[in-house]
Amino acid sequence: MKAWEKNIRKVVPYVPGEQPGNKNVVKLNTNENPYPPAPGVQKVLQEFDASRLRLYPDPSGTLLVEELARFYHLDKEQIFVGVGSDDVLAMAFMTFFNSDQPILFPNITYSFYPVWCNLFSIPYETPALDPNFCIVREDYYRENGGIVIANPNAPTSIYEEVSVIEDILRHNSSSIIIVDEAYIDFAGTSCLELINRYENLLVVQTFSKSRSMAGMRIGFAMGNPVLIQALNEVKYSFNSYTMDTVSLLTGAAAVRDEEYFRSIVQKVILTREQAKEQLKELGFSFPVSGANFIFATHERIPAKRIYEALRENDIYVRYFNMPRIDNYLRISIGTDEEMDRLFTFLRKWLNHPNA
Amino acid sequence: MKAWEKNIRKVVPYVPGEQPGNKNVVKLNTNENPYPPAPGVQKVLQEFDASRLRLYPDPSGTLLVEELARFYHLDKEQIFVGVGSDDVLAMAFMTFFNSDQPILFPNITYSFYPVWCNLFSIPYETPALDPNFCIVREDYYRENGGIVIANPNAPTSIYEEVSVIEDILRHNSSSIIIVDEAYIDFAGTSCLELINRYENLLVVQTFSKSRSMAGMRIGFAMGNPVLIQALNEVKYSFNSYTMDTVSLLTGAAAVRDEEYFRSIVQKVILTREQAKEQLKELGFSFPVSGANFIFATHERIPAKRIYEALRENDIYVRYFNMPRIDNYLRISIGTDEEMDRLFTFLRKWLNHPNA
Repeated sequence: MKAWEKNIRKVVPYVPGEQPGNKNVVKLNTNENPYPPAPGVQKVLQEFDASRLRLYPDPSGTLLVEELARFYHLDKEQIFVGVGSDDVLAMAFMTFFNSDQPILFPNITYSFYPVWCNLFSIPYETPALDPNFCIVREDYYRENGGIVIANPNAPTSIYEEVSVIEDILRHNSSSIIIVDEAYIDFAGTSCLELINRYENLLVVQTFSKSRSMAGMRIGFAMGNPVLIQALNEVKYSFNSYTMDTVSLLTGAAAVRDEEYFRSIVQKVILTREQAKEQLKELGFSFPVSGANFIFATHERIPAKRIYEALRENDIYVRYFNMPRIDNYLRISIGTDEEMDRLFTFLRKWLNHPNA
Repeated sequence: MKAWEKNIRKVVPYVPGEQPGNKNVVKLNTNENPYPPAPGVQKVLQEFDASRLRLYPDPSGTLLVEELARFYHLDKEQIFVGVGSDDVLAMAFMTFFNSDQPILFPNITYSFYPVWCNLFSIPYETPALDPNFCIVREDYYRENGGIVIANPNAPTSIYEEVSVIEDILRHNSSSIIIVDEAYIDFAGTSCLELINRYENLLVVQTFSKSRSMAGMRIGFAMGNPVLIQALNEVKYSFNSYTMDTVSLLTGAAAVRDEEYFRSIVQKVILTREQAKEQLKELGFSFPVSGANFIFATHERIPAKRIYEALRENDIYVRYFNMPRIDNYLRISIGTDEEMDRLFTFLRKWLNHPNA
């Protein structure tokens, strides 16, 4: 090792799902929305005057913050925006988890959490989910430096009722609790209704799933103004202008079209419910999904083999080679046509996996 | 203070220049380019199919990286891209400055450097510039955890010859040296020519100044592949997808149009040279500028008073209320028309500042 290499930070990066270049692929591996963003997004892009780009964007992202405030009936001081929910979560870990006590999150959850802990030297412990992949709430009744709960959880797809989260909040008034609701719009009630009663609660959401804008990188956090101000101060200490002008404008346009948003979420949910029937018929089982994906295991064939067979046939799903979940596939909900291609292949292949 | 507040990170954020909403303002306060981005940028936006946004962007930003590699005659393994050079620099501070030794940068330079040091708990020392605001190279002949040189420097506008930087590199083979070249295209030779000989050198540039794309948030770093890989690993530990699809495509379009790039840089330089004459006639003096701004002090009137008078008349320049530079104004180079409005006002006002 050369002398100058000794000060380089050692990290074990998160590995995102593949983004295959091939257009003919059925891409059910990164929980993207199969439908385009709201029509207003296309309109903003078409009408955008590129000469505006010579100026810096609004560092506080007011336009987007105000649109979100209107949509969620909040004050704008309760909203923080960032470059996808990963950026928002990274900032939140950096801002809120400065304790010698370990932070807590389930042993099976979004695999970026331990990556952020390593990056920012945050101690952590991972209480085990129960055999049904549900949270054991009592595991969170103890001193900690913070708690992170993905709800619905990834990759299990399981939605815990707000009462479960509230119970954990009631037992934790001394640390900050982050509820990562990337998939909430496909599930049930958001914990947003709790932020006025629990000032140590931060709810994080994203435009990447229900709003079909993964490619635009927009995420946001909602919580009491003290939390939001702390996040903004860390943001202003990292990069004054994280959100570009085009993402602020297109994001605002997407939020404005509530009807379209509701309609594509409903379409995904409908396809998911039909997919469940098909998967059952094919010998798969899975927890009840509150997300835009299904976490499925097959009665006979190992998940890894199915994953590989699908991949060879240009159908991408996600496989995690990790303890307890290495016999599961995480299958994103695509269009009905994409799901048909998946099921047509599986119907044939599962009968003759060695052919 | 509530119990949950005790773990919140304490920071002193960077304060960006104002972004006044009023359209009629002459905005010479944040070193933006007065000309629009390359015409290809408008074309990309107009023709962009919004349905692409449902998918995540390419996490490695290959399209933009390849275009930059072609432009700068580098391998793509020598280039890292981020959300403006602030994002790139923040990542670089986090990646490369993990030492108990202080990092070094001049006492008058980009005021974000100490902010990142505070955010990431990096010890630092700030050797004083000489009375002409030039670097005292011998101050960097000592053990350190890294060195950061803005060249041209901000807010002084002074460009140091490559030989000065190379001298500092020759005396420092044990730490990583970052040269922040945000303004280099308005100056002279880049230190880029040194990266093949000094593997501990990272050169950082931006699309916000010479490429007129401050609103799109694009910056990049160039260096040997070990440095670039380390940066990418930290990036993948923070946010897999920092650059959105639109910024990747528009950024690549901007780089492709070399002729336009050269032409607007020349126009800004020409206006700067004319502005120097005008400022001299008005009783200002300033260091030789290698940037798209002039750092000027007046023979009679305190800078703060001029700043305030300009502001009241909708002409924004930047004023730093800091030791040694509190009698200077940083004036960005605008269009010829904008500069005329500035000089017309100053000609009148400087003769009767108390009127």
